Amino acid sequence: MRDLKGHPELCAVNSATLGFQATVHEVIDEIARAGFGGLALWRREMEGQDIKSIAKHIRDAGLKVTGYCRSTYFPADSRAQFEANVADNVTALREAAQLGAENFALVVGSGKDLSAAQAQVTEGIGQLLPHARALGVKLALEPLHPVYAADRSCVTSLAQALDICDLLGDRHLGVLIDVYHLWWDAFVARDIARAKGRILGFHVSDWLTPVGDVLNNRGMMGDGVIDIPALRAMVEAAGYSGLVEVEIFSTQNWWKRPMAETLGIAKERFGAFV
Amino acid sequence: MRDLKGHPELCAVNSATLGFQATVHEVIDEIARAGFGGLALWRREMEGQDIKSIAKHIRDAGLKVTGYCRSTYFPADSRAQFEANVADNVTALREAAQLGAENFALVVGSGKDLSAAQAQVTEGIGQLLPHARALGVKLALEPLHPVYAADRSCVTSLAQALDICDLLGDRHLGVLIDVYHLWWDAFVARDIARAKGRILGFHVSDWLTPVGDVLNNRGMMGDGVIDIPALRAMVEAAGYSGLVEVEIFSTQNWWKRPMAETLGIAKERFGAFV
Repeated sequence: MRDLKGHPELCAVNSATLGFQATVHEVIDEIARAGFGGLALWRREMEGQDIKSIAKHIRDAGLKVTGYCRSTYFPADSRAQFEANVADNVTALREAAQLGAENFALVVGSGKDLSAAQAQVTEGIGQLLPHARALGVKLALEPLHPVYAADRSCVTSLAQALDICDLLGDRHLGVLIDVYHLWWDAFVARDIARAKGRILGFHVSDWLTPVGDVLNNRGMMGDGVIDIPALRAMVEAAGYSGLVEVEIFSTQNWWKRPMAETLGIAKERFGAFV
Repeated sequence: MRDLKGHPELCAVNSATLGFQATVHEVIDEIARAGFGGLALWRREMEGQDIKSIAKHIRDAGLKVTGYCRSTYFPADSRAQFEANVADNVTALREAAQLGAENFALVVGSGKDLSAAQAQVTEGIGQLLPHARALGVKLALEPLHPVYAADRSCVTSLAQALDICDLLGDRHLGVLIDVYHLWWDAFVARDIARAKGRILGFHVSDWLTPVGDVLNNRGMMGDGVIDIPALRAMVEAAGYSGLVEVEIFSTQNWWKRPMAETLGIAKERFGAFV
């Protein structure tokens, strides 16, 4: 297992961790200044911006772009809306390619009819794949914690995500493993081993107790209950050698702090708790 | 599939649904008056009471006791505490037998080291089994929603619960299927089929969106996203013929209403949404 202590260049920062309190250019500068090796950005940060100049800024700063967040939900009540969702994701894939992102994060959505939503998700990913191949951006399917099954994702376990990968059978589709979403699963070791060669990203944060707001009260690594090093060992044993990315949604704590403070603490925690 | 409309005698009420606002004797009378076929009670309701007289009251009212809630969490930091937890569960099993309960609900607890907690849970259930056999009360292992993995249960899927049943291999151990805990699982149909002959209880409520407080904001059947009839069809196809039990934790809504109102609405919803 890699030693992350003193190696922030092996770590990336998802810009959501910093609370969207500054321009994307300021975010790039702060992350580079702290010594990290990469970053992940969000579509909302591209609004009204010139993507090419953002991409150039990132390259000039020596940063990798791990991922581009995130897909528009696939499931829809009408065929027209489903097709519009897929089309919007094609647009996002082009943006990801312009940014030089390694992958496009698929947070897939859900619906009252879970089985129907799952079928639409599989079909939608299948429709994106030719575009992903043409653009050279991988699709990183991210299973979310089951607490989001009603609204954000009908894909709620790594086993289920891998079944979708198996079904579509394309090397441009893999999985994104986020400890916050998967730590509870008694079968996670078995399923991470099964994911060998298909792990496109590894996200870290922590699960606080009591969890409170399940969406926007994620903890900094070390402040919660997740055994992150154990999960990282599994992921690296399964061949993952990419950057380890911190992604913390925290309206009441980390998002209120100056960016440099959050980045400094994250850097320490990467070395001690990841 | 059984028709529940006009058949409250096929349905049971978990007393927690009524918010613990009255004595256990009042609760028994209200549930019987509404025409339900059974009820489940909690240990807290036995405090300072004569269990034999409660049991007689229930029998006289013509009600079954589906379950007795619930186990003391098994995992502990010390061996002495683990043994005390098991001993406390033996005491609870005796109370369940006195009440004539069909099963004792196992909500198993968790710990920061999930694997260690899982091992303690399996060992603890194994130690309870001889007592369960001697007393004629079945142990109903209840997988909880993964949102409770940090504190309330390290058993978070039906597949995992069935693996524990397989390991211990005893007919006095089975599973309790609660739609609130399992509805999100893409593998739930497969796993319910696997549970054939081992389903000891079927609990209903609904998952509201947004969920808000994940512990005490459960919805009445029909008010949320769960396809309860689909899950009941699976459970009955797997041989379950016991009572269908409503269990709603709802500090801000149902627990504030008069018991008769909640029972009347539950009775309607059983016929329309379960």
